[in-house]
Amino acid sequence: MINFINDYNAGAAPEILDALVKINSQEFAPYGEDSLCDEARELIKFELERNDVDIHFMEGGTQANMTVISSALRSHEGVIATVSGHIATHETGAIESTGHKVITVPHHNGKMKIADIEEALAFHDDEHKVKPRMIYISQSTEWGSIYTKAELAEIYEFAQGHNLFLYVDGARLGAALTSKAADFTMADMAKYADAFTIGGTKNGIFIGEAVVITNPLLKTEFRYAIKQKGALMAKGWLLGVQFKELFRDGLFYRLAEYANNQSEKIKETLADIGVEMKSDSPTNQLFPIFPMSFIMELSQNFGFQIIEKVGDDQAVIRFVTSWATGDVAVSALIATLAKYRR
Amino acid sequence: MINFINDYNAGAAPEILDALVKINSQEFAPYGEDSLCDEARELIKFELERNDVDIHFMEGGTQANMTVISSALRSHEGVIATVSGHIATHETGAIESTGHKVITVPHHNGKMKIADIEEALAFHDDEHKVKPRMIYISQSTEWGSIYTKAELAEIYEFAQGHNLFLYVDGARLGAALTSKAADFTMADMAKYADAFTIGGTKNGIFIGEAVVITNPLLKTEFRYAIKQKGALMAKGWLLGVQFKELFRDGLFYRLAEYANNQSEKIKETLADIGVEMKSDSPTNQLFPIFPMSFIMELSQNFGFQIIEKVGDDQAVIRFVTSWATGDVAVSALIATLAKYRR
Amino acid sequence: MINFINDYNAGAAPEILDALVKINSQEFAPYGEDSLCDEARELIKFELERNDVDIHFMEGGTQANMTVISSALRSHEGVIATVSGHIATHETGAIESTGHKVITVPHHNGKMKIADIEEALAFHDDEHKVKPRMIYISQSTEWGSIYTKAELAEIYEFAQGHNLFLYVDGARLGAALTSKAADFTMADMAKYADAFTIGGTKNGIFIGEAVVITNPLLKTEFRYAIKQKGALMAKGWLLGVQFKELFRDGLFYRLAEYANNQSEKIKETLADIGVEMKSDSPTNQLFPIFPMSFIMELSQNFGFQIIEKVGDDQAVIRFVTSWATGDVAVSALIATLAKYRR
Amino acid sequence: MINFINDYNAGAAPEILDALVKINSQEFAPYGEDSLCDEARELIKFELERNDVDIHFMEGGTQANMTVISSALRSHEGVIATVSGHIATHETGAIESTGHKVITVPHHNGKMKIADIEEALAFHDDEHKVKPRMIYISQSTEWGSIYTKAELAEIYEFAQGHNLFLYVDGARLGAALTSKAADFTMADMAKYADAFTIGGTKNGIFIGEAVVITNPLLKTEFRYAIKQKGALMAKGWLLGVQFKELFRDGLFYRLAEYANNQSEKIKETLADIGVEMKSDSPTNQLFPIFPMSFIMELSQNFGFQIIEKVGDDQAVIRFVTSWATGDVAVSALIATLAKYRR
Repeated sequence: MINFINDYNAGAAPEILDALVKINSQEFAPYGEDSLCDEARELIKFELERNDVDIHFMEGGTQANMTVISSALRSHEGVIATVSGHIATHETGAIESTGHKVITVPHHNGKMKIADIEEALAFHDDEHKVKPRMIYISQSTEWGSIYTKAELAEIYEFAQGHNLFLYVDGARLGAALTSKAADFTMADMAKYADAFTIGGTKNGIFIGEAVVITNPLLKTEFRYAIKQKGALMAKGWLLGVQFKELFRDGLFYRLAEYANNQSEKIKETLADIGVEMKSDSPTNQLFPIFPMSFIMELSQNFGFQIIEKVGDDQAVIRFVTSWATGDVAVSALIATLAKYRR
Repeated sequence: MINFINDYNAGAAPEILDALVKINSQEFAPYGEDSLCDEARELIKFELERNDVDIHFMEGGTQANMTVISSALRSHEGVIATVSGHIATHETGAIESTGHKVITVPHHNGKMKIADIEEALAFHDDEHKVKPRMIYISQSTEWGSIYTKAELAEIYEFAQGHNLFLYVDGARLGAALTSKAADFTMADMAKYADAFTIGGTKNGIFIGEAVVITNPLLKTEFRYAIKQKGALMAKGWLLGVQFKELFRDGLFYRLAEYANNQSEKIKETLADIGVEMKSDSPTNQLFPIFPMSFIMELSQNFGFQIIEKVGDDQAVIRFVTSWATGDVAVSALIATLAKYRR
Repeated sequence: MINFINDYNAGAAPEILDALVKINSQEFAPYGEDSLCDEARELIKFELERNDVDIHFMEGGTQANMTVISSALRSHEGVIATVSGHIATHETGAIESTGHKVITVPHHNGKMKIADIEEALAFHDDEHKVKPRMIYISQSTEWGSIYTKAELAEIYEFAQGHNLFLYVDGARLGAALTSKAADFTMADMAKYADAFTIGGTKNGIFIGEAVVITNPLLKTEFRYAIKQKGALMAKGWLLGVQFKELFRDGLFYRLAEYANNQSEKIKETLADIGVEMKSDSPTNQLFPIFPMSFIMELSQNFGFQIIEKVGDDQAVIRFVTSWATGDVAVSALIATLAKYRR
Repeated sequence: MINFINDYNAGAAPEILDALVKINSQEFAPYGEDSLCDEARELIKFELERNDVDIHFMEGGTQANMTVISSALRSHEGVIATVSGHIATHETGAIESTGHKVITVPHHNGKMKIADIEEALAFHDDEHKVKPRMIYISQSTEWGSIYTKAELAEIYEFAQGHNLFLYVDGARLGAALTSKAADFTMADMAKYADAFTIGGTKNGIFIGEAVVITNPLLKTEFRYAIKQKGALMAKGWLLGVQFKELFRDGLFYRLAEYANNQSEKIKETLADIGVEMKSDSPTNQLFPIFPMSFIMELSQNFGFQIIEKVGDDQAVIRFVTSWATGDVAVSALIATLAKYRR
């Protein structure tokens, strides 16, 4: 089976493994207060071009989302997300389990529009409805798309003007930043968000997400929130060493760019054969629509997800590439796709 | 101002007040374990034509909803409601505050269809999404409509077959039961629900909802849940005496039928003048669509709610009648409506 | 059975019932935004000798406690209470159900001492423990005792100096204020608390507690919290009319003083016969220790609670008096007690 | 600084690191449904001498505790723990954050006694208090002590007889099982618990706790609970490979026994010099009481925790040894301790 099923089905990039092996015999302070975490924080701050942020390393994306959101909100406040947002659909009600409503709005190619936020605010206008207090978006989105710098700025400014925090789920931030369509930098992310994550798990490390907090209101006592959610890792330096290696000399970007490039090749083939795409994605997730018969054929040799049915006999499927997706795998998929005839 | 704004803007029906006055000087056991509550329970059981139910009296509808739902569900389980369901929109995230997701499905004239539940179940198919475990519907609905007996039976049987509880919010159950369109009885409600409420606050008493539990799984230790939600009323007999009076000789039905009749008259006028209705309601809530200019005119003398905009210059408004809506008020409204020209 | 079992086993004082009857046929705005609630608020502010407070009327004590506390605290924060505090023992984990730990400290005759708070703060010193953010005390306490004005001031100042809110549960505040041992006024309560309640249910009204909030931080969006906890009463004016009557011309104090006086007579008899008291109470709850044999005898004619065993054959029992405790009842109890021989 | 501060300040044992390196380039199914997790499960089942258990691998101890407990309990139920229990003190209210009260009872050398549970049950006797539904104990305890097989059996049988689940926190289960004082086996743990954990993080692996569930009631839909708590690790096989290595040929026991032996040597020296011990610990944590002056001296060269003050000028300190505590470190500590004169 040649896998295009996700970007977390392989261990860690060799550089990450090496870094881990190298420090294994050393002792460190526990709970993320060690020298490796500190060095990783400094490297990320350098990327962000600012020092006035707090950075915490956590184990997973759902964990990071629920910790950031529940720490930020008062009991009666809610968070706005698109109906396709990860917190709205694929986290088993983790946000609700902390007591907060996820207010859903429509998505447009995976993205949120100001008009939708405005409509949500207009409805939630008194104490009989939850108080919207945070906007949650993903960069890249669950449909592979990315917000442009202008769009990020617009949402952030709207949020600022309406007493809303903007939190960006960057589980696939590497793919977003290294997309050919990207017009923003890592520093822009910090500029246009109250908090955001830098995903490691889906970009070449064993495990780990970095939570970056720019808004002072969200910084206070965040370590209490981490601990309460069962997320304060005893051997925190194991996260630190990986993020240090990711940002020491650009590995984070190289791995993500590689993944995007592998998708790009597949995307070109899909364009050549004229397949309809459910979503216009410039990153490492592709969403072609195929007849079920061809999907069955594909599934003989390739691993991928069937996302949703389209009519009676077609479906959207998803191909995902990662730092670990080899050229042989991509060539094999391309060769099979090329044989497709509508 | 002549009010059609809601069905809870007057105190209690005279019979209820009298009953309360009569027992005021007596002493009772606290927390709902008194003789008046017991008598009320017996009277309701008589209406339900069965004895194997538990009945608890609570203070309000949101309180009852959050107590029943959070008591029934395990932490990872969710409740399915229409997007117009009271728990989905007008309870400030009360259900989510107890840790549970409200899974929304479309509504059809305020009602839920099996196909929508099926779609929700199909999506929530593994541990990455909450586990649907309960269906929440309202009778009558937030749009004034009612489920027929066949529809109730169908949903209940579907629920039974899919390991789902069916909980019916009866905040306006009186209006439903006494609607000319109703083909079901109070006994049917117990037959086709694992739990449901009998609303008192909106049907002539000071305060109070009766929670009826038919499913043994939901009965166990429910008083703990009541107490934990701050809802175990010290002077519980004050609820008991009101429900006893409601069901002693049919007052519950008389009050509701009166309210429906008042709406019926208004509805006929609306039909005469050819106004479009947002919802086809056979109960005490009506949802005509008027131009904003006429709505402004109406609001000079009448109290009502503007529900939502329709296009640029129209809106859905809501007229509600109750046991306390006098003939003079209805005549005044009808007279004003009759002057309306499209 | 002559009842000394609690102070909420009778309906409402005649003045309260009359007030309710008088306004029953009138219409009011819902959800506590009516003229009666406003008048009641003004009367209470007059007692408090200040206007810069927010006042909300709620249905019950547990409800008020869980709403105030969960609205005030961030997810990782806890509230300090004595082991005998109502929230620590008799609310079925209502506070914990909102996600917050109740940090318990020893009690001294029902009261909290600064040294105990200091010890709790010393232990909760980093992110591995919850962050204490609020102190909860009761006035009068669960053991009938009262904090002096100096003690209130001391705790409040300590709280201020340690970034803690002070919340006072006044379920029996009337008894405290009218105790012969009291050296503080209603105005002092507002002076020395960030929020406190004025209990109505246990002092002569049908149902209701007033929540007074003095700290601006706790005022914001409190109505959202009320609604979310299922506590925003549709017919809020029913609470307003009662509190208006309570504070229109001192009824609140007269009822409480009467209850205290009835207890005082019993207390004198207990002193005469030389019975040991578990707690030194100057209010309407008394806690004598009797042999089980005498307790059995007493229970033939009198209703009271057995609080806890003392050694093998004795127990602490509780006598409670209220506005409804008649002289005949007190005389009967005194006559029986007078026959007791150690 | 020579560290005796905890048992999680070094990376992983060499065998664990090797196993991780070996499989790094392979692909696996995500979320713990891979072949390595399966193999690890089989090996653990072999140790447990039974197949009818569910085994889940999680990232941390607090995470495991909050997931097991919140998944098992209904909203109004609580868990009984000693005042020294990890969930009662050092998890920032994680259990309460899931809505459940931790009911505390006294500890005896870190352990719980039946009489204390009985007293807790006697108090929690109606719906005004939470319903105790689970007992939480630690093996070894937070004070280094261990429950004997007879004690485990007694508590388990008591729990069975009182409708309580018994959950054992085995963060340091290796130390317990390999203590010279231990009279129980791994299989006994499964025999006398409804669920328990096998701690990896404190016994030589990078990160990971195995949750073993024996009671069918607790097995159902547990993966939903894991996901909801943000604890369903994408690359679950990284936990699997470590537990496989731990239990492939007894590494788990060898590492723990080594740690115990290092403590044993220190304990002998402490006995020789006649130091009072706060707790009688046969495992890898020791709790001597020293004057502050000597503690200050020790702290020049050694890392350890000061647990609590004893009188004005003494304190309990804690030495912890692990698989990574070298002989040189132990000899250095012993040499320094030997110089102590009371």
